[in-house]
Amino acid sequence: MYSKEEYVQEAEKFIKVHHQDKWYEKKLNRLESIREQIYSEGTWTPTKDELKKGGQMAWRNSSRCIGRLFHMSLNVKDKRNLTDENEIFEALVEHLQEATNEGRIKPVMTVFRERRKGEEIRIWNKQLVRYAGFENDGVITGDPAEVEFTNKCIGLGWKPKRTAFELLPIVIQIGNREPKWFELPRKSVLEVKITHPELHFFEELQLKWYAVPVITDMAFRMAGLEYTAAPFSGWYMGTEIAARNLADENRYNMLPVVAKKMGLSTNSRHDLWKDRALLEINRAVLYSFKKAGVMITDHHTASRQFMKFCTREKEAGREVMADWSWIVPPMSASTMEVFHKQWQDNVSDPNFYYQEKKWKKTAGKKLNGCPYYLNSN
Amino acid sequence: MYSKEEYVQEAEKFIKVHHQDKWYEKKLNRLESIREQIYSEGTWTPTKDELKKGGQMAWRNSSRCIGRLFHMSLNVKDKRNLTDENEIFEALVEHLQEATNEGRIKPVMTVFRERRKGEEIRIWNKQLVRYAGFENDGVITGDPAEVEFTNKCIGLGWKPKRTAFELLPIVIQIGNREPKWFELPRKSVLEVKITHPELHFFEELQLKWYAVPVITDMAFRMAGLEYTAAPFSGWYMGTEIAARNLADENRYNMLPVVAKKMGLSTNSRHDLWKDRALLEINRAVLYSFKKAGVMITDHHTASRQFMKFCTREKEAGREVMADWSWIVPPMSASTMEVFHKQWQDNVSDPNFYYQEKKWKKTAGKKLNGCPYYLNSN
Repeated sequence: MYSKEEYVQEAEKFIKVHHQDKWYEKKLNRLESIREQIYSEGTWTPTKDELKKGGQMAWRNSSRCIGRLFHMSLNVKDKRNLTDENEIFEALVEHLQEATNEGRIKPVMTVFRERRKGEEIRIWNKQLVRYAGFENDGVITGDPAEVEFTNKCIGLGWKPKRTAFELLPIVIQIGNREPKWFELPRKSVLEVKITHPELHFFEELQLKWYAVPVITDMAFRMAGLEYTAAPFSGWYMGTEIAARNLADENRYNMLPVVAKKMGLSTNSRHDLWKDRALLEINRAVLYSFKKAGVMITDHHTASRQFMKFCTREKEAGREVMADWSWIVPPMSASTMEVFHKQWQDNVSDPNFYYQEKKWKKTAGKKLNGCPYYLNSN
Repeated sequence: MYSKEEYVQEAEKFIKVHHQDKWYEKKLNRLESIREQIYSEGTWTPTKDELKKGGQMAWRNSSRCIGRLFHMSLNVKDKRNLTDENEIFEALVEHLQEATNEGRIKPVMTVFRERRKGEEIRIWNKQLVRYAGFENDGVITGDPAEVEFTNKCIGLGWKPKRTAFELLPIVIQIGNREPKWFELPRKSVLEVKITHPELHFFEELQLKWYAVPVITDMAFRMAGLEYTAAPFSGWYMGTEIAARNLADENRYNMLPVVAKKMGLSTNSRHDLWKDRALLEINRAVLYSFKKAGVMITDHHTASRQFMKFCTREKEAGREVMADWSWIVPPMSASTMEVFHKQWQDNVSDPNFYYQEKKWKKTAGKKLNGCPYYLNSN
């Protein structure tokens, strides 16, 4: 917890960076009003413009994100006035619809009430749209990564159909109140059926994925202000779906299934059956999104865009912070320029942070070493 | 440069680790004889056994190497008595033949004279076998990474045929004497012609690669002793040849050529032409080596072996140091267990180090930040 003066200093840093950005020229007297508000009310309220700028800077500072070239296009929706779970849920649906934009995806962040302004708002879900996972005698239907959370939802009274791509309900908790859960209206969730330009067996696999990844469990921090609910979204890079969500062994684990359909023996690592199946799933995802008119980027394009971002940041006199192991895409790495580069990686605000989950005890170990971890006060 | 007492301390550390390894039990009095030798002669001479153990530990400590499961199988050849370029060259040829072993490749290290024992011995080449690169009006024949060194060799009097896979001569320098160069006997260099199990156009491309990568430009340091010439070799992992040497844009750059032969348009990044060409080159390399009876490992097997190494090290009470960005193979990364792990990465001796080249001024910047860089005294 900051002292009031430290809190003012954080605000000052934020306003000064704006000034460097030539955005806040002639507005340095703003600092005086911030200081007054902190000393009288214990916190301060950024203007809508400051909030927007903070959100864009948080994206720009996200050292694990390859898509930062577009940070200036982030739409920031100010929902700081909401205090009720139902209203918050409606704002989330609004976020999803506006971000989806019928496939022409727009980057959006929705900011709910700041921590000091009242009881903490939390969205329990990892992402706004996410498929449930069900374990039955060791066999998992759906997304294995969501089994634990799915059980939590069932405990709250959710009645699932137990299918492979079933939308999880949204769980919202304010302070220590009972969490409330809501079903997303089906029509607000755009999904893409996965087919392949040549391999027609993909239809039989009945795979699909949702159009927009909206991160809901990270905190947004700017100038000492902590927004524990501030969902944000861009568009997908193909590998996120095809090389991780559908392919990881502890996710949908489709490599052996696709390889078998391709007629490949899974006995011989030497003949690269995994690499071959992986490639075709990736082609399928990019092809399907394109066919459906839903924005997606491939990893080669994303890599180029990131290098362009680096050039622009250098021109602006800023050093790019980046986490190489996250920036470099998870397939065909050495074919992209980013593989051959190095970056410093220091975390600076505004930024997005992991936070302890409200619905389960998080193993402290893993989080401790992580610069992206925000300690609860 | 160490003081004599620091030098003794380094030796002590080395001997004590041996003791932990239960290799040096009852031999702690060895330290006394080392101390005596350092104070009388200014240096000390490890026994053949100590040298072997040091080499194996250097491999075990190489945090960028995925193949460390096999460090105990390293053969260490003691050539510390050689003082003449011709003899050294003969020892290099012997190394290559013994390591090649008609395709059943054996890990080998050859250790030449230590720095303090006389004038520094250096092998100018990056690897013992390596293809020359020739630039003509901006067009490069051969390996672009070797153009500068190739010109050096030509300057020394080498007369190349200027072909795409032409063996570079070996350049040996002792102290400040004129470097001497030698041509490797053709029959000592095993090479593999690259063909593909299905895509027959690979024959037309006339690609090949050598069987054994022997690193010749790194220094081996153990217990304060610096061996500036200590070539070492294992066997290849397929991606080193197929995803890097043959595919990198600043190397043989075969992706566009292979894609074209496959009938893929290089206009559409979205259809993953690079990934598809990359995959087929990798299949071709693994297939060709196997067909030729030359040992090679695929990245999936290597990844599993590395995880086994980690388990064994843990059992032995040692923490594995590893550089994630080097350990994780450059293709299909997320399909392997190593992608999902993290390691500390501190450098400890015995180890292998980059050193400043004798034949060109190295840009200090790049080397400065690197823990693997050995400063010349």
